[in-house]
Amino acid sequence: MKKIDHIGIAVKDLAVSNALFEKLLGVSPYKQEEVESEGVTTSFFKSDTSKIELLASTDENSVIAKFIEKKGEGMHHIAFEVDDIEQEIRRLKEEGFHVLNEIPKKGADNKLVVFLHPKSTNGVLIELCQNIKEL
Amino acid sequence: MKKIDHIGIAVKDLAVSNALFEKLLGVSPYKQEEVESEGVTTSFFKSDTSKIELLASTDENSVIAKFIEKKGEGMHHIAFEVDDIEQEIRRLKEEGFHVLNEIPKKGADNKLVVFLHPKSTNGVLIELCQNIKEL
Repeated sequence: MKKIDHIGIAVKDLAVSNALFEKLLGVSPYKQEEVESEGVTTSFFKSDTSKIELLASTDENSVIAKFIEKKGEGMHHIAFEVDDIEQEIRRLKEEGFHVLNEIPKKGADNKLVVFLHPKSTNGVLIELCQNIKEL
Repeated sequence: MKKIDHIGIAVKDLAVSNALFEKLLGVSPYKQEEVESEGVTTSFFKSDTSKIELLASTDENSVIAKFIEKKGEGMHHIAFEVDDIEQEIRRLKEEGFHVLNEIPKKGADNKLVVFLHPKSTNGVLIELCQNIKEL
């Protein structure tokens, strides 16, 4: 685990929350990106070497829509950057963590991502992410 | 807001969670500290330039005890480092944020801290923290 890559925050309305976090952090989001496979639109704010990712649902059946329905807006996950996601999956499985998707999937921000089930991590949804190398 | 200083995670049993996060992050907590005024014991893990702070209650009436009772273990707050906490409080109040304690209080890790009410920040409890300068 190299560093905290970003903190994911579930929001209802991306435009409203972009304005709110712009005021809070004093910077504008540097990009907005739809992840169609996950039914979300995301926006990113830089904070030194980490980022804040806002996630708004574009599909009433998305994970984010269900999260907000159950818990309301708020912190959704912590993402850690890793160099070798396959190796980290193996290591964490051996340590007893519950890996939600064993085959990394394409997430926002040009990354391969994997999630750990919050039941094995003190109620915290943990994401591992690895930059997709350009060929 | 200079950077994400740390992410605070509410846990029931600090020893159990220290062991869990040690396995997850691959590093040991670098310090443990009681904050008597808040009724918590905390431990800190370094992650590049940020930290993970675990918070366990030492008092059944503490904020952390009540949080866990209501929501279970999990992410509790995001802390941003600031250079001048008084100036940030003024700025954020002018921007319409609800500052929970207008007079900064002494938190863990030799810092002055202030919290923003989650109702004004998309359900996210935000902490501002400033290093206490040595005289």
